Amino acid sequence: MALRVGVIGGGQLARMMIAPAVELGLEIRVLAEAEGMSAQLAATAVGDYRDLDTVRAFAQDVDVITFDHEHVPQGVLRALADEGIAVRPGPDALQFAQDKLVMRARLAELGVPQPDWAAVANAEELQAFLDDHGGRAVVKTPRGGYDGKGVRVVSSGEEAADWFAEIGALLVEELVSFTRELAQQIARRPGGQMVAYPVVETVQRDGVCAEVLAPAPGASERLAQVAEGIGRQIAEGLGVTGMLAVELFETDDERILVNELAMRPHNSGHWSQDGAVTGQFEQHLRAVADLPLGDAAPRAPWAVMVNILGGPAEGTFEDRFEAAMTAHPEAKIHTYGKAARPGRKVGHVNVAGADLDDVVYTARAAAAQFD
Amino acid sequence: MALRVGVIGGGQLARMMIAPAVELGLEIRVLAEAEGMSAQLAATAVGDYRDLDTVRAFAQDVDVITFDHEHVPQGVLRALADEGIAVRPGPDALQFAQDKLVMRARLAELGVPQPDWAAVANAEELQAFLDDHGGRAVVKTPRGGYDGKGVRVVSSGEEAADWFAEIGALLVEELVSFTRELAQQIARRPGGQMVAYPVVETVQRDGVCAEVLAPAPGASERLAQVAEGIGRQIAEGLGVTGMLAVELFETDDERILVNELAMRPHNSGHWSQDGAVTGQFEQHLRAVADLPLGDAAPRAPWAVMVNILGGPAEGTFEDRFEAAMTAHPEAKIHTYGKAARPGRKVGHVNVAGADLDDVVYTARAAAAQFD
Repeated sequence: MALRVGVIGGGQLARMMIAPAVELGLEIRVLAEAEGMSAQLAATAVGDYRDLDTVRAFAQDVDVITFDHEHVPQGVLRALADEGIAVRPGPDALQFAQDKLVMRARLAELGVPQPDWAAVANAEELQAFLDDHGGRAVVKTPRGGYDGKGVRVVSSGEEAADWFAEIGALLVEELVSFTRELAQQIARRPGGQMVAYPVVETVQRDGVCAEVLAPAPGASERLAQVAEGIGRQIAEGLGVTGMLAVELFETDDERILVNELAMRPHNSGHWSQDGAVTGQFEQHLRAVADLPLGDAAPRAPWAVMVNILGGPAEGTFEDRFEAAMTAHPEAKIHTYGKAARPGRKVGHVNVAGADLDDVVYTARAAAAQFD
Repeated sequence: MALRVGVIGGGQLARMMIAPAVELGLEIRVLAEAEGMSAQLAATAVGDYRDLDTVRAFAQDVDVITFDHEHVPQGVLRALADEGIAVRPGPDALQFAQDKLVMRARLAELGVPQPDWAAVANAEELQAFLDDHGGRAVVKTPRGGYDGKGVRVVSSGEEAADWFAEIGALLVEELVSFTRELAQQIARRPGGQMVAYPVVETVQRDGVCAEVLAPAPGASERLAQVAEGIGRQIAEGLGVTGMLAVELFETDDERILVNELAMRPHNSGHWSQDGAVTGQFEQHLRAVADLPLGDAAPRAPWAVMVNILGGPAEGTFEDRFEAAMTAHPEAKIHTYGKAARPGRKVGHVNVAGADLDDVVYTARAAAAQFD
């Protein structure tokens, strides 16, 4: 049993591990990128996660290393693992969350349904893919993209010329005609024990997750089984430890295709803090500390999460928080302790209940107090 | 809005404020009695809560003072309040939780139903009370009792001779013929806003709370209303801020009588962490930070809490914890980070669900893994 969990990255995902860690009796230590980050409430070291000596020193005082993000270089991860430090998820798994080309190739080997894709090295190769796929496609930088960054819809090979010059090979994917986006979360322990959360619907605005509805409304039992099967196959096939989030497209011809992966707690799972017996942050800690996994069943028929984005609001965050609490005593408002810059995720609202319309209304209304 | 909450006392009640404080964006600082206490995960000062200078220095860095226990002397509390420091609950309210004679006299003024009682100064006065009440009664030290300590059932005035010599005046109460014990919790904000939790049944063993069933099984609507009314009357009448727990006897002639009071989160409310929309630790923080109160409605038809007591168990606490998690993935096990001495509360299990028998069984079975 790993009692001290070291989290690399000081963002809100690390912060939200603190509360369940207290109740589980686990100690959280954070290696933050800078002073004053979201997770600074835990014992925090500040340092560069790309520097092996920094990460190695941080690792000396913990029983297991896990992550708030996927950006720790493979060289650092492999050096730690070679020295016998428990790194969960490990470098072999994390490579698939770090490089979308490597991910696509591996999912193809596993036979997991995904959009048509190709690795393209220049404008001519991209144009050839476009010619085969109706003249429009999605180009992605293999590394470093998130929340819509590093993603571009193009209709000509020249439209990615700057990226080819700067980065080299890119991932191109067919523009999937999807009816909605889903997400499937799986928790996996080092020994292979897995637990699946219900498949959820995610709603994006401007490339950023705005709302999550759990479970996905109208999802048939077959759809739920297919999504869970894909999640389990990927968690097993990629050797994931901890939480895995699989972002999915549901197409108008009732197929499910894998869009993206994340090997950590994920925005699509925040609902589970207040809507499932075991929230994703507790579950991630159990998995990486090699503790028995908890029940992932919903606590209520419906749970909805709405993100709170920083905006041009008048008044302080505290005033808006108080207004939201006054108007919606049943809403669970989670704050990240971050300055509210426009478009930045600074918190979220969870609401659970028996009536989906009511739950959606309340969650949106509470979050709207921050607009 | 009070952003920094100072908690006097480093026990598990302070510890369990940490998790909701993280999500609410409040900072918890603790004045602990010693190093290595349960709440040491928060920013912790160590010092004597009976020393005004120590408490005053602690208070300088927080926006409001609250408590893990009721033992801070009135002189210290009043000095802080006189200096303009927000002390919640305040000394005027806390005196009723600190001295059972003062509490009984005030509840009598309010007309709240309670057992027959008297202040007795010597064995003769105690004997006179016994003669009027069937020859047996409960004697209590006015101050400092908890978990059955400072309580003695006597059938002769001489049986409290040592306490009279040591302490002076004692409280004597009729031995109530009760069918079960209940508890009613109320949260109250400084401005007077109140929220009531459902009345619960508490089961004591050897004078220590063993189990809590929420809501109290078989409670009629009338009983629930009477209990809530008593709770609201006391919270208002005593000017409580924060969580108030009213321990009640239900008699075989369907009366409800007030047994004890606590002005802080209380063992009878631990179920609410996983069984109510707003847990009592979050609610206490909201109330003392003067934030709008949260919904106290249950999340499930039934919730049951079973305490984990240290015992002569073989194997480490960690091994037993792991066994309990393995056998009962739906149980929420909360740990206090305390050494497991026999009879000491070291954690508790919460289980919520639709079937009371199932919920009780699972909670007891998970807790039994620690026996």
